[in-house]
This record gives sequence, structure tokens and C-alpha cells, in this order.
Amino acid sequence: MMDFQSRQKSLRRQLATHRFDALLVSHLPNIRYLCGFTGSAGLLLVTQAHSAFFTDVRYDTQAHAEVTGARVIIARKALLNAVGEWIKSRRKRSKGCTIGIEAENLAVAERKRLVELLPSGSKLKNAPPLVEQARMTKDEDELARIRQAVELGASLFDRALEVLRLGIKEVEVAAEMEYAARRAGASEMSFPTIIASGARSALPHGRASEQAIAAGSFVICDFGVILHGYCSDQTRTVWVGRASSQEAKEARRAYEAVKEAQQAAISAARAGVNVSEVDAAARQVLRQAGLGRYFTHSTGHGVGLEIHEAPRVAAGQKEVLKPGMVVTIEPGVYFPGKWGVRIEDMVVVKDGGCEILTPTGKDFLAV
Amino acid sequence: MMDFQSRQKSLRRQLATHRFDALLVSHLPNIRYLCGFTGSAGLLLVTQAHSAFFTDVRYDTQAHAEVTGARVIIARKALLNAVGEWIKSRRKRSKGCTIGIEAENLAVAERKRLVELLPSGSKLKNAPPLVEQARMTKDEDELARIRQAVELGASLFDRALEVLRLGIKEVEVAAEMEYAARRAGASEMSFPTIIASGARSALPHGRASEQAIAAGSFVICDFGVILHGYCSDQTRTVWVGRASSQEAKEARRAYEAVKEAQQAAISAARAGVNVSEVDAAARQVLRQAGLGRYFTHSTGHGVGLEIHEAPRVAAGQKEVLKPGMVVTIEPGVYFPGKWGVRIEDMVVVKDGGCEILTPTGKDFLAV
Repeated sequence: MMDFQSRQKSLRRQLATHRFDALLVSHLPNIRYLCGFTGSAGLLLVTQAHSAFFTDVRYDTQAHAEVTGARVIIARKALLNAVGEWIKSRRKRSKGCTIGIEAENLAVAERKRLVELLPSGSKLKNAPPLVEQARMTKDEDELARIRQAVELGASLFDRALEVLRLGIKEVEVAAEMEYAARRAGASEMSFPTIIASGARSALPHGRASEQAIAAGSFVICDFGVILHGYCSDQTRTVWVGRASSQEAKEARRAYEAVKEAQQAAISAARAGVNVSEVDAAARQVLRQAGLGRYFTHSTGHGVGLEIHEAPRVAAGQKEVLKPGMVVTIEPGVYFPGKWGVRIEDMVVVKDGGCEILTPTGKDFLAV
Repeated sequence: MMDFQSRQKSLRRQLATHRFDALLVSHLPNIRYLCGFTGSAGLLLVTQAHSAFFTDVRYDTQAHAEVTGARVIIARKALLNAVGEWIKSRRKRSKGCTIGIEAENLAVAERKRLVELLPSGSKLKNAPPLVEQARMTKDEDELARIRQAVELGASLFDRALEVLRLGIKEVEVAAEMEYAARRAGASEMSFPTIIASGARSALPHGRASEQAIAAGSFVICDFGVILHGYCSDQTRTVWVGRASSQEAKEARRAYEAVKEAQQAAISAARAGVNVSEVDAAARQVLRQAGLGRYFTHSTGHGVGLEIHEAPRVAAGQKEVLKPGMVVTIEPGVYFPGKWGVRIEDMVVVKDGGCEILTPTGKDFLAV
């Protein structure tokens, strides 16, 4: 059971610090984090004295069963109308009432409607990403769930290796992995499964296609599950064909460089270190191997209720790692028209280092 | 091959009518509709003279392969920055330049950043949902894809009937259906599969859980696939247990009323009719059966590139059906703590009537 009450309590302290009378939480993962609702339509209003959760009639039973620490209100019209009415009824004297909004997760049109619904004297103000910041650091309950998701996710790579062979289609490999995930209790995949073979392995986001696996190239497998709300994310890259061929030897040099870069970033990740230093550690290894310009994306990202969440592990980012943060470490190199390699683990940050959550080996593998 | 050029041409006529110099398209399904890009990050700027598509380096190869009718620009920083620079470079005299934004699909914070990036003299204005309106009416290429998606979707119900038996878990049924979908070429499910048995069938959105199927209740199966970008959506409800029992007889009365209501709505759906009349046709049948207050949601919604798109088939809506619109017809009744029934087909609107796309039978079925 997640500790929704203390999360809301922390948020209230933040609201006081930032001089907001209320925060309208519109981002569904933030709502889930704060009160436990798992459906697809809802708004949570948190004030110093109350929390009110608004959803529609489809989620009546579910909301009453799931929501902790907030009064459930079933909106008869649009959710924003119900929010407006609730604020009006509570705030006879709403003069000077400042309501924070999640500006990255509220549409321009929604804000406009809300302004029209609010009592005069109240005003909207863009809030900093207070809930996203809290979510960066995972508590013990969250870490337990993340470990379960990562374990289940990792088991899918074993399944992939059972079916990966010449001639099988990328989507068939994905289908077997997804079926195994579902059978093992995953509610869904955390993103469209990437099985990218041949020249498609040079696409950082090559989701599984009808292409058949051919020899003489890499296959990138990048996949994850959602289990009890938490995401896993993992990438392994395997060579298809004889490991002793000339092209396999060249490929292996790139593979080993990526593996070394990934290890360098993992070694750099610990509490107190800036995320940009972790990114730089991976980038330096690849630069020294002459592959720097083929590493075209950033080194990683936070994972939790969302597959991509704060912090970004990238150049120019200012975030400092703290104990309990969970991030991916996933350098890769891509040669357009030829092939690509990426290796990705999830790690949890600790004092003095980090713990690799992903149990799968990373040695060069030819199938 | 979709006719992206003529879709953009239609949009340009709309822009001229509404006196916009450009429209910034930020809703990904709208971008796919206008230029063919299928990835997860992009912005499309359509002016009278040009279309420019902005994405990041992960989608470099893919965007160049997919995008039709727009110049592809790979943003080195944030996409909005690239948009701002592009507008600046094209508009030395941007005085009076009015850029429409998709206010339902642009975040408050994104709009704020964009304002800061634009040259002085240019201004942002909330555009009406021009692309959503165009997308309501499907062309022949779209209808062909939708028919394929609906056929594949329907085949999953046959698979469900093969595995549905006492004691099997809801998620196991969903896993078999989703595996069959993947094997048959679906890129993913169009929404989390709903397999809701026992009292869970009274939840309109009861996604498959660990609950085992038990006798003496309905199972609602609501599911769909995405095939070549287009969604299917279908619901069938089956009784579990002896059809001759007393409780089955009572359940059957509700089932037949929902079936009759669904047929009434289908009979009402034709070009020229207001969507609210279609909703009223279903509602009237259930009211006459004494079940009106258990039909707690609306009758249907548009389906296409998105699982839920315009028009809504609901009371109070003003949209008039036109030939080529594709909508669901899905009345249902729900008795909290007991069970629920829903029957859903997809139909395409024609002059003088509509064509039911979903091929699955609707007779009361006990397993």
C-alpha cells in the first residue's frame, strides 16, 4: 500500500512555500502518485485543508475503491465544471485565491475554460513541477514494485532468445515477448516493443516491423512492462550470424565500446553527482573509441509510473542525483544504413554508487 | 497510400477562411493524418506556401522515409525552438503574422515558450479543431484500413470464445486475444483490453484483472486493435452458466433490451441526422424497458486514427452525421454489485442509412 497521505502532506508543505492556495493536478501519473486512482480521466485538487478528486460516472465504483486521501466527486458534466463549482462552493470569499496549475500538462483550451469557470478574484498561476520532483525519489514501496517490474521485464529477453532465429519476423519476436509478459501479470508493455534488425537497428526507435531477421547484423531489443503501475525499461543487442566472421569482429569492437561506455556511466552514477557528469562519462568512452558522433541521443532518463520521467541524464541538465532515484543508463551508437548497438540497464542511485537493477548479462552474444 | 497533399490543400483553404497565416499542428494523430509521420515526437507547421515538419534526431531516418508534403527539419534542441527559428528565418517582416495553435493539444507551458521564441509582431490564436473536423469524414483509403482493422478485431472475439471457460482469469483471456492480434499484424491494441466478469461487468471500464471467470454472471469483452494506424472497437457480452437458469432468464431480458436499443440507434444513424437523435433512439428503447437510468454513458464516438475522436454520439451534441463518418454504437446497462451488459459495433454512415462494419453476431450467448 502506497503512502498517499504522506505524499499529499509533502505537497501541502510545498504549496505553502510557493504561496499557492491549491494545486490542480491534471497529469494522470501525478494523480495516481498522490491518491492511487488508476483510470484514464480525473483531476485532483489539493488545498491546505482538503483534497478533492473529480472523475466521471464511468469510474464511479473504481474511484471509490481506489482513491485514498481525497474526497471522490463524480462530475455530471465536464470535470473542469465540477472543479469550478467545488471551488465556488468552498470559497465564498475567494479574493486573492491562487490556484497552481500543471502548465506542462494542462491544455491551453482547458486553462481558458477553467478561467471562465472560476469565481472572480481567484487566479491561476503556473506551478513548478512539484509532483514530478517528488516522484524522482522513489520510496521503499515504489522500489519494491520497480524491482518486480524489472525482473519480469528481464525474463522477456530470455523468451526473445528462445525464438530469435534467422527468418523470424521482428513482430513475431515482439508478440512472443508480449504474450509472456501478459501471462506473467504485466498490465501492458511500457512502450511499443522495439525489435530492430538489420539496417533498422540504426533507428534508435525502430519498433518491431514485418521485417525478417537476417544474418550479418545486430538486433536491438528494447522493451519494458508495466507491473502494478510501475515501468521497466531494458535494451540488449545481439549479433545475428557467425561470431567469427570479419563483419562480426568489426561489430564486436563497437559493441565492446558501448558496453564500456555504459559501465563508465554506471560507475559515475551516485548520490551528489550531476546527471550531466553521468552522461559525459559514457560520451567520453565513445569519443575515445572514435565513435562519439554516432552516439546521437542522451544517456538516460528517470523511470517509475512513467516510462520517461525526470531526471533526464543528458548534457546540459542541472539535476543532482539523490538516493532513491531510478534512471536508465543506455548509450548507443548508430550507423545509418548499416546497424546500431544499444545497451540499457535500470539503476537505483545510492550514496557512494548505484545498484544495477537489470539482472541480464551484457556479454557479446551471437545467435 | 494516403492522399496527404490534398488533405493539406483542404487545410490551407480552411486557414485562409479563418485568416490564419499558419497552423501549428501539435496533436500527433493530426500530424499523421496530414503528412504520414508515425513517430512519437513531432510538430507540423502549415503555411499557405510551405509545410515544415520538425522532429528530433531519433526520428531522422524514419521521418525522411515517412513524411509526404512537408520539409523535414531535425531539431538540434527542443522542437519549439526549431519552429521559432524557422518562422523567424522565413518572416523577416512578421508584422501581423497570425499563427493558429491547437488549443486542446498544446500545453500551457508550451504556448508560453512559443510566445517567447516568436519574432515580435507575430501572434498566436486558438484555432478551431480544423484537422479533427476533416478527420471525421473518412476517405476511401481510410475506410479500407478501418475495414481491415475491424475484421482483425472481430477475429479476436472468436479467439476469446475458444478460451473463455469457468476458472480462467480475465487477464488470460486478454493475453490470448492480444497474442492473436499481434500474430495477425496488429501493431498494438487500441486501448487496454476490457474483460470484465461477475460484478466487474458492472464497471463500464473494467480492464482485465486477475479475477477468475465464475458462473451466474455476464462477461463484457470490449477490445480493439490498431492495424496500419487505424483503430477497431467492439464489445460483446456473454453469459457464463446455464442459459436455462432463473438468473440467466432475467439477465437475458436485459440483454435483449440492450440489443434492441443498439439496433434502434443503428437504424437511426444516417447522413443528415443529428448525433443526439441516434443517442436518443437507443435511450428511448431502454427507458421503455425500465432500464433508462442504468444506461449511464453515451451511445458512441468516432473512431479512426484515434480510438476516441469526433463526433461524440451523445445527448446535447450538435454534430450532424455525414457520409463517411465512422462511429461506434454501444449502449449498455450496469447494475452495480451485480452485472452489466454492453453491445458495440462500428458503423460507417451513408446516405439513407449506415453500414455495420463489425461482422460478429449479437444473439444471446451462454458459455
